[in-house]
Amino acid sequence: MRADPKPVLNRLRRIEGQVRGLQRMVEEEVYCVDILTQVAAVQTALEQVAIQVLDGHVRGCVATAVAGDDDQAATQKLDELMEAVRRFSRARP
Amino acid sequence: MRADPKPVLNRLRRIEGQVRGLQRMVEEEVYCVDILTQVAAVQTALEQVAIQVLDGHVRGCVATAVAGDDDQAATQKLDELMEAVRRFSRARP
Amino acid sequence: MRADPKPVLNRLRRIEGQVRGLQRMVEEEVYCVDILTQVAAVQTALEQVAIQVLDGHVRGCVATAVAGDDDQAATQKLDELMEAVRRFSRARP
Amino acid sequence: MRADPKPVLNRLRRIEGQVRGLQRMVEEEVYCVDILTQVAAVQTALEQVAIQVLDGHVRGCVATAVAGDDDQAATQKLDELMEAVRRFSRARP
Repeated sequence: MRADPKPVLNRLRRIEGQVRGLQRMVEEEVYCVDILTQVAAVQTALEQVAIQVLDGHVRGCVATAVAGDDDQAATQKLDELMEAVRRFSRARP
Repeated sequence: MRADPKPVLNRLRRIEGQVRGLQRMVEEEVYCVDILTQVAAVQTALEQVAIQVLDGHVRGCVATAVAGDDDQAATQKLDELMEAVRRFSRARP
Repeated sequence: MRADPKPVLNRLRRIEGQVRGLQRMVEEEVYCVDILTQVAAVQTALEQVAIQVLDGHVRGCVATAVAGDDDQAATQKLDELMEAVRRFSRARP
Repeated sequence: MRADPKPVLNRLRRIEGQVRGLQRMVEEEVYCVDILTQVAAVQTALEQVAIQVLDGHVRGCVATAVAGDDDQAATQKLDELMEAVRRFSRARP
């Protein structure tokens, strides 16, 4: 990762804390629906991490390859990017 | 859209047929779970349309702007792209 | 489907219109990002159909089976329900 | 949570480890696409936790309320359930 890793790291540390919080909720037999609400919050937080990493990747690696002279390298980066986007969609085979 | 629109159009026509099929299923009071299975199939088909359109956009408009000399135009395309990706994720505000 | 099918049918007819609108957008070479925005709108509309059908199913078939005397039938309905929920999540295998 | 909490706890501990692994990947500037692949794996793992909790909730609390004599309590549990399902779908307003 070439973009500034700090905001991503901060998010991941907060997510780690949320996952530990979830473990406590399960141990203390908190009401299921409250656990589900918290799981949904962690999922949203992770999606934001994914988008932040993807953003850095697109503006960094991908843009550099596309702006460069090596067409094959650019195509490869674009294939890889679309593969990553596909993985985050429902269209996974 | 600059990429070949035919495969996207074919998918959309098939989706239109699936949506009409869903209407018949509801009218004929088909079992709910079978309706849900069919809704999930249409959603996957739509996601594939989205990915196909996004793919054409990234390799067309976005790549052209990024490879060009106008840095501001390139940044604008990248902002727009990330906004579209965000719309397809769970991280929507 | 035992619940009132009208609201679901109305939604599906609107979705059919939206899908035809998408075909026109593709034919008229509308800007990709606007097509993607419209695809996302149709996906949200379909998700609402799924939730409406699921809601009718849970309050109808599933609740009836669970409140009835046949434990095996109740378990089967619950298995089927969870399978349908799983199909709408990311956790598909 | 009334169902056996152990399998859920085990999954959450594994997820905590995966999130710490992600932090290391970011610190060591691992390639973005590999980070994205790992984020997608954690999301799938979290979705499985959600489904496991939801499953226990439906077969426990919800089924008990629906099979009981208090119609209002049953309706409230079903409302709450559908609200939780909605939160895990794209149909969030």
